[in-house]
Amino acid sequence: MKNFVLIPDSFKGTMSSAQICGIMSESILAVIPDAQIRQIPVADGGEGSVDAFLQALGGERINAKVQGPFGEEMDAFYALIDGGETAVVEMAACAGLPLVEGRPDPTRTTTYGVGQLILDAARRGAKKIIAGLGGSATNDGGCGAAAAIGTKFFDGAGEPFVPVGGTLSKIARIDTSGNDASLRGVEIITMCDIDNPLHGTEGAAYIFGPQKGADRATVELLDAGLVNLDEQMKSSLGLDISTMRGAGAAGGMGAGMVAFFGASLKMGIEVVLDTVKFEDVIAGADLILTGEGKIDGQSLRGKVVIGVARRARASGVPVAAIVGDIDKTAKGAYAEGVAGIFSINLLAEDFSRAKLHAREDLAFTVENLLRFITRIRVRE
Amino acid sequence: MKNFVLIPDSFKGTMSSAQICGIMSESILAVIPDAQIRQIPVADGGEGSVDAFLQALGGERINAKVQGPFGEEMDAFYALIDGGETAVVEMAACAGLPLVEGRPDPTRTTTYGVGQLILDAARRGAKKIIAGLGGSATNDGGCGAAAAIGTKFFDGAGEPFVPVGGTLSKIARIDTSGNDASLRGVEIITMCDIDNPLHGTEGAAYIFGPQKGADRATVELLDAGLVNLDEQMKSSLGLDISTMRGAGAAGGMGAGMVAFFGASLKMGIEVVLDTVKFEDVIAGADLILTGEGKIDGQSLRGKVVIGVARRARASGVPVAAIVGDIDKTAKGAYAEGVAGIFSINLLAEDFSRAKLHAREDLAFTVENLLRFITRIRVRE
Repeated sequence: MKNFVLIPDSFKGTMSSAQICGIMSESILAVIPDAQIRQIPVADGGEGSVDAFLQALGGERINAKVQGPFGEEMDAFYALIDGGETAVVEMAACAGLPLVEGRPDPTRTTTYGVGQLILDAARRGAKKIIAGLGGSATNDGGCGAAAAIGTKFFDGAGEPFVPVGGTLSKIARIDTSGNDASLRGVEIITMCDIDNPLHGTEGAAYIFGPQKGADRATVELLDAGLVNLDEQMKSSLGLDISTMRGAGAAGGMGAGMVAFFGASLKMGIEVVLDTVKFEDVIAGADLILTGEGKIDGQSLRGKVVIGVARRARASGVPVAAIVGDIDKTAKGAYAEGVAGIFSINLLAEDFSRAKLHAREDLAFTVENLLRFITRIRVRE
Repeated sequence: MKNFVLIPDSFKGTMSSAQICGIMSESILAVIPDAQIRQIPVADGGEGSVDAFLQALGGERINAKVQGPFGEEMDAFYALIDGGETAVVEMAACAGLPLVEGRPDPTRTTTYGVGQLILDAARRGAKKIIAGLGGSATNDGGCGAAAAIGTKFFDGAGEPFVPVGGTLSKIARIDTSGNDASLRGVEIITMCDIDNPLHGTEGAAYIFGPQKGADRATVELLDAGLVNLDEQMKSSLGLDISTMRGAGAAGGMGAGMVAFFGASLKMGIEVVLDTVKFEDVIAGADLILTGEGKIDGQSLRGKVVIGVARRARASGVPVAAIVGDIDKTAKGAYAEGVAGIFSINLLAEDFSRAKLHAREDLAFTVENLLRFITRIRVRE
């Protein structure tokens, strides 16, 4: 038992996936000093996704001046990996909630900078661009990003404008014919783990508006705007995204990525597994350690642990899930290929206390498992 | 991986060791239907110890009419195991706290019945008698039990009497010369996991008196009685038990067993391991599952998990500890031979909630571990 692959999700509220990789790695080395360890912190598309890909694969962190959430110039960044063939953009870098702290306003914020980052990557020659949604401060349906690559939006008087959340209702026509040529032939993949549709009570405004600062009246205004955006996409672009799952991600950015960028929406873990060439990575590995903050019946639908287990199955490399909480409905995970599930809860105490020593508990749990594995003898 | 030995302690407040054996066994069979499983619920000397030995080893449950805690006749029991060569007596059977519920009085309760049970076993031919202390309602220093086998106690006026907690101070002379001949040559072993001395602020009366119903004044009375018993043991029997660890167990029964019965005091787990012939039991086993309610630095001093691990070490059979809480000071357990420690805490919640589903959590934890073991491949 020498070769390990670490591919955990973050534990929400306690540790990032990169921190978890670091702790797991140290714990393994404490038991097996000559272990070979490959660390793949899982990016979820939100803040930290660019760095997670860089940690997993190496590459270059590119800085770029773009528009921030209120249109102000700011320094943002993205990653070029895979020898420059692939770029990773996270929308949180220039349209994230932390950037509007103290002054959130989803009626005014824009994704313009995200489009600029994507365009910058394409102009540098990236043939594949991964866009991470998540943690956004916006509700502009991706119109800002689209405007940055050349899409034109017109109001009822035929005047061009760049829509924001509060002005989506004014869109009367959309024209993508002038989109920048650099993006032709570039594959754009959107990491999106959210199922919500663009509008309605399960849509972007109703579900995510409040956490971006929208009160009830604002939510209704934003939702009406997204309804109009849907109609304009139908009439101007011939696209019906009204029932598309994930269209409502990141203030409608899911819909915008599909409609204006020709992007596909994929589960984050699938994008990570594809990008790191997971099957190659685990060839010859003895054990894969994955994990997430909580495993339950929901986890069977595309979250990190199950995503990893399904893809590892054919290889025969066992997958151990190190998690925070285990809901016993998670037993279905075994059928998906998970070999064992181990909680880091070492004491009977609630989360407000447990989270204070989550790192030590994770270290103990991984070291203990490795000690156990190296002590038992398994007969065929 | 086919042969398993289960030897858990109870989880205080949630599950008896016999229940734990049952749950562990079912969980193993769920993964390995043809598993061979030996169940050894660990007796701690308290209530349930007789049945634990019977479950582990088979044998005969003997009923006997003896005196109860207030001298009334009652039905009690003990076990004959090992083809009748060995008896197991638990003092809780006729001097236990549940028998005085609602009317506890350590100044009046007696261990007389315990002596009767021991004598009965000896008369039936037992050559070794294991006496389990624990859960007692008494504070008579074992004088009642001694009286039952023929020890005479005299007061200052030379009158014989049977001392109880409240009259220990009246003992002026002790004579063991008339002890029943049936006990000659019988090895008596006392299971005793308690370190307390006979008297003083760490002694039987001060530490355990209150839970037997003694108020402050009664504690002082009881302690004074135990001081006198100590002096009389010195003067009449030539025995100094004043600093003996464990003398204060079960209301001074530890002292009485040594002084009047010639018993040795041993850690409960050691008695169990000796009696089941542990080295023979684990020969050829693939995995030993032990456990206790909480493992911590204290556990390194003779509790069940460590006791099992130390004895299993030479065999090379790996020991997994399934526990409630894990205090990280328990890491020393690895050096004692524990291969891995697994908590049944699956959710971050406090004990008042966790205990409600402890059985399911234990079942999940054991089944998960077995699934994991059967899925991994360990290279030498």
